Amino acid sequence: MASITVGILGATGYTGVELVKLLKKHPFAAMGYVSSQSYAGKKFSEVFPELKSICDMELISPDAALEKPVDCVFSCLPHAASAGLCLPLINKGIRIIDLSADFRIKNAATYTQWYKTEHPCPQFLDKAVFGMPEHYRNSIATAQILANPGCYSTSIMLPLIPLFKKKGAAITSVIADSKSGVSGTGRSLKLSSLFVEAHDNFSAYSIGRSHRHLAEIDQELALAGAQNIAVTFSPHLLPLNRGILSTIYVTGAGQAAECLEIIREAYAQEPFVRMREPQDLPTIKGVAGTNFCDISATGGGNGQPVIIVSAIDNLLKGASGQALQNMNIMFGYNETTALR
Amino acid sequence: MASITVGILGATGYTGVELVKLLKKHPFAAMGYVSSQSYAGKKFSEVFPELKSICDMELISPDAALEKPVDCVFSCLPHAASAGLCLPLINKGIRIIDLSADFRIKNAATYTQWYKTEHPCPQFLDKAVFGMPEHYRNSIATAQILANPGCYSTSIMLPLIPLFKKKGAAITSVIADSKSGVSGTGRSLKLSSLFVEAHDNFSAYSIGRSHRHLAEIDQELALAGAQNIAVTFSPHLLPLNRGILSTIYVTGAGQAAECLEIIREAYAQEPFVRMREPQDLPTIKGVAGTNFCDISATGGGNGQPVIIVSAIDNLLKGASGQALQNMNIMFGYNETTALR
Amino acid sequence: MASITVGILGATGYTGVELVKLLKKHPFAAMGYVSSQSYAGKKFSEVFPELKSICDMELISPDAALEKPVDCVFSCLPHAASAGLCLPLINKGIRIIDLSADFRIKNAATYTQWYKTEHPCPQFLDKAVFGMPEHYRNSIATAQILANPGCYSTSIMLPLIPLFKKKGAAITSVIADSKSGVSGTGRSLKLSSLFVEAHDNFSAYSIGRSHRHLAEIDQELALAGAQNIAVTFSPHLLPLNRGILSTIYVTGAGQAAECLEIIREAYAQEPFVRMREPQDLPTIKGVAGTNFCDISATGGGNGQPVIIVSAIDNLLKGASGQALQNMNIMFGYNETTALR
Amino acid sequence: MASITVGILGATGYTGVELVKLLKKHPFAAMGYVSSQSYAGKKFSEVFPELKSICDMELISPDAALEKPVDCVFSCLPHAASAGLCLPLINKGIRIIDLSADFRIKNAATYTQWYKTEHPCPQFLDKAVFGMPEHYRNSIATAQILANPGCYSTSIMLPLIPLFKKKGAAITSVIADSKSGVSGTGRSLKLSSLFVEAHDNFSAYSIGRSHRHLAEIDQELALAGAQNIAVTFSPHLLPLNRGILSTIYVTGAGQAAECLEIIREAYAQEPFVRMREPQDLPTIKGVAGTNFCDISATGGGNGQPVIIVSAIDNLLKGASGQALQNMNIMFGYNETTALR
Repeated sequence: MASITVGILGATGYTGVELVKLLKKHPFAAMGYVSSQSYAGKKFSEVFPELKSICDMELISPDAALEKPVDCVFSCLPHAASAGLCLPLINKGIRIIDLSADFRIKNAATYTQWYKTEHPCPQFLDKAVFGMPEHYRNSIATAQILANPGCYSTSIMLPLIPLFKKKGAAITSVIADSKSGVSGTGRSLKLSSLFVEAHDNFSAYSIGRSHRHLAEIDQELALAGAQNIAVTFSPHLLPLNRGILSTIYVTGAGQAAECLEIIREAYAQEPFVRMREPQDLPTIKGVAGTNFCDISATGGGNGQPVIIVSAIDNLLKGASGQALQNMNIMFGYNETTALR
Repeated sequence: MASITVGILGATGYTGVELVKLLKKHPFAAMGYVSSQSYAGKKFSEVFPELKSICDMELISPDAALEKPVDCVFSCLPHAASAGLCLPLINKGIRIIDLSADFRIKNAATYTQWYKTEHPCPQFLDKAVFGMPEHYRNSIATAQILANPGCYSTSIMLPLIPLFKKKGAAITSVIADSKSGVSGTGRSLKLSSLFVEAHDNFSAYSIGRSHRHLAEIDQELALAGAQNIAVTFSPHLLPLNRGILSTIYVTGAGQAAECLEIIREAYAQEPFVRMREPQDLPTIKGVAGTNFCDISATGGGNGQPVIIVSAIDNLLKGASGQALQNMNIMFGYNETTALR
Repeated sequence: MASITVGILGATGYTGVELVKLLKKHPFAAMGYVSSQSYAGKKFSEVFPELKSICDMELISPDAALEKPVDCVFSCLPHAASAGLCLPLINKGIRIIDLSADFRIKNAATYTQWYKTEHPCPQFLDKAVFGMPEHYRNSIATAQILANPGCYSTSIMLPLIPLFKKKGAAITSVIADSKSGVSGTGRSLKLSSLFVEAHDNFSAYSIGRSHRHLAEIDQELALAGAQNIAVTFSPHLLPLNRGILSTIYVTGAGQAAECLEIIREAYAQEPFVRMREPQDLPTIKGVAGTNFCDISATGGGNGQPVIIVSAIDNLLKGASGQALQNMNIMFGYNETTALR
Repeated sequence: MASITVGILGATGYTGVELVKLLKKHPFAAMGYVSSQSYAGKKFSEVFPELKSICDMELISPDAALEKPVDCVFSCLPHAASAGLCLPLINKGIRIIDLSADFRIKNAATYTQWYKTEHPCPQFLDKAVFGMPEHYRNSIATAQILANPGCYSTSIMLPLIPLFKKKGAAITSVIADSKSGVSGTGRSLKLSSLFVEAHDNFSAYSIGRSHRHLAEIDQELALAGAQNIAVTFSPHLLPLNRGILSTIYVTGAGQAAECLEIIREAYAQEPFVRMREPQDLPTIKGVAGTNFCDISATGGGNGQPVIIVSAIDNLLKGASGQALQNMNIMFGYNETTALR
């Protein structure tokens, strides 16, 4: 199997370090560089001491990174910054896996509406492929620009897309009540991210129709057949490091058994979707540290909504794990390499 | 102010020890006894070392407790056991504050349906008063049997009852997605309650229409004006000790502002309900260790449900705090004594 | 009982908010002001939403605070800043309770050596009283400047002072292995204080002879009779919010039983020291939320050190609780007011 | 490379499930069986849902397990039970890796003194090899009975053995203050293991000279050259799942730099010992999820002890990881297989 060399932009955030850990287990992907604006010049293992003797590579500046010849670049930069910095790489023909939201939204105006900024390179939006292997595997294989899905979005869309494909016309409302670990808020210094503030606490934020992941959820569910559905989405912050559990209430989809069957059938061949029984609901412990999305459902009938419960590790299937899964597809490796 | 003497049955569970801590701050309530089947003969502070020099009283057996003359008995026993043991006390005319579910449900058949057991003394169900001070204050004042509400139920019903009273006919569905700390599952030895199992975990259980608190939620919301509403209720387990946050989706109730105004007006004089602004949602940290219920709401309009967020400390406003608030009302003390 | 009015400088840190909570329960101390440089103009309950309807007072700037007539000022400011800002208040004759280290060290040169800065007002060091009620109660009663002890120091010195008073000549070495909750590091934005960094983690820092609390430990133990003892002190960071547990190894002090007896006798009348049995060692849960210091000891004999275990709540007996205890003594209130 | 088949006795405890996860990544070790008395008949993934589709093998009873032909058996049973059940396997010539304490102590009387029970097969104690690869690699390679070291012991002995080998005569005292995550107490139902009891708590237990791991610590340090040293050992319980950090105070060993150099030299070729700088002390986060032991040291001089800090994952280097490392040596695989 041919080997590739990869670079990571924004390597010192939580998704960056997770990618490094995964790539170090990959037999065919060599680390070309790890880059960081603020830590350039330091060893990666100085920033993350747990990686001593695993990744002692020196971090380089983004400017230096752009000059390095690699086969694939993962961008773990924030939105807007990410597309801006990737632009010259795209022009050079390097394959990009962007973990930010920049290439997820097909419509530049929609992007601006949700992200409050002009898109740095709207001309490439059409070219970008939405990186959900379960639904875009063929396009991913040949993509130059891969838009890795959001963490919440992954947990919500994986169960819903097959459902909308089969029952899009019948479904009348969707409420996604999601709970995420604190690593989802990133490694930047914010009062609400302090241990003393988040520990022994639980809170809702950006609930209703305000969280940015709704942009991609709206887009992808519409493509799956959603008709005039504006998903109600309530993110919450859990006092733990990693994991997302979404409790999703679907009205109009009939009974849970039927919905479960539709989802099970859609994902029968998928290596990273595990269906659970209604009496054995997914948990965060069940997926933390793995690239799995666990899904189950219960309820429905007697006017009750079907209740879907899905769980992922927000840093793996919700970010770096899915990104590596996409890389495996893009470069022809076994899709589960370094992920099981 | 006249003093009273109180006893506690089942004092070595989490609600029992919480009651002891509150009562120790009460200037007019003397501890007559603390009782426990399994720890009888030990000092209370041997079971809960943090209470050394605060409550070193010896625990007595339930049999011995029944003989003790007191003005008021708190029962922290499990359902069925509680009503059974309280029966002779009721017959003696002692005032009972029952923290179990035994006297909450007016209809004995409904009780049996949800709790899978015959009610030990259905003849007293009519006499019992549902102990939600905000709605039954006058009846509480003279009650002999006080049925203290459930923890989840309190967090769900406090915001919903005023809403149903005003808009009962318009509301078409209610989904309550609730998250509770582990103390809500009690102090008994269960694998799922082990630290290693619950830490870094988050899970749903008994979701849909299966959790027993639905019995009292159905009953009280019907009394408030709910018409053919079967609340969808999804409890979840949070990796923290105390606190419940409920995210409640109400369809048909109009806009959040209007709903908030209705709730605010209903509770304007209430000492333990705090209304928050839509941009300042309740959190568990905001209520832990207090007897407050914090409430806010957002959303509604454009086909979106109103989203109500409420938070309580499950051991205080959700159990022992509310029980003491009820005791204060029953015996004519200032309602906030030992609670603020 | 005469009432007093108090002000708090630096009220928006963790010791400040804790003081506010305590003072709100005090029947004789009215809140004159809460002050903060960064949050001036905001309501206190906007910064700490859990205090809504408990303390909605507006925060004022330090400049404005200096003009306010009050009987007593608590300074929760950082070292150096604290003495500097308190200087005009001292000159006005206002009684000061300083929670920083500024007035703890009698020798200005020693202060400079440990705190790497000139003391802002060395002329007042003599006048300041070290605020450990168990050992300086009489001086505290009349103090104008009260130096509230450090959190680690309190947990270490409370058991050691009586021991050194009786056996100072015999003790040959002391090792204090201390573990503190994250609130001890303050509310400022540091990477190591982020939830994701501190959760599921445990680490040592400033171990050996480098932590600043050694300045006051050295000073006070010398006064108690320590001869040529340089305590080895190893602080560690626990993944919890509040509490300190110190495991202290004392060589040369004989057997645990004898040591325990000496400590027990010294503190027989103390309201906030609880002696525990060797088989019932102090725990953080046992003191969190209280102003107690729990102490026990085991070991000794056969060349083994006596092992003392002590536990306090770092924000209460280790800071704001002890500060209020000192205020009670200074103004003639019952020492336990608002603390039990 | 030849493949082997392995069995696991007591597979449903925390060390058992950890072993299964490791073995599933091993290219040459096939799972022959997983055995459990209490869960026999269930699928492994029913007991540990996170392993669905990873290990769905059915658990068999110990009796059935004894009949199964395998190359190697890991025993994760409790002490006494372990040796008893392994006896027939030993007699059959099967190679045993025992994670219990049963084969660690060479002297049957010492075993009985610490473990309060007769040894089930003292005749095999001589034959057993203490499974610390860094010191017994050659004997491990040919061992039939492998005694896997205890978790605390590993964290304490790894830094101390080289030190005693070089400076055994000079060292006059050792105090090991160790802190372990809750998984170290096992998966059995105990009040102190409940989430609500252990969360937000920290406590010492079995301190001084009472914890059973002292039996193997005494034995191995004596072999390394300790002269009349009775290590003082204080275990503590941390509110996290996995990890041990030991802070070890050594008197008489000179300066930290010298000690670090001795340890560094001893482990220069070791794949699972990482030396850290004095200003970069080991942390639990730095080793959790890995088979590394991180070691650093500071202090010494001026009458101060050298302070060694070591950290391991108690379930990996402290149990199942080290067990697999031993298996790799015993069967001639690369020592790091499935461990990096």
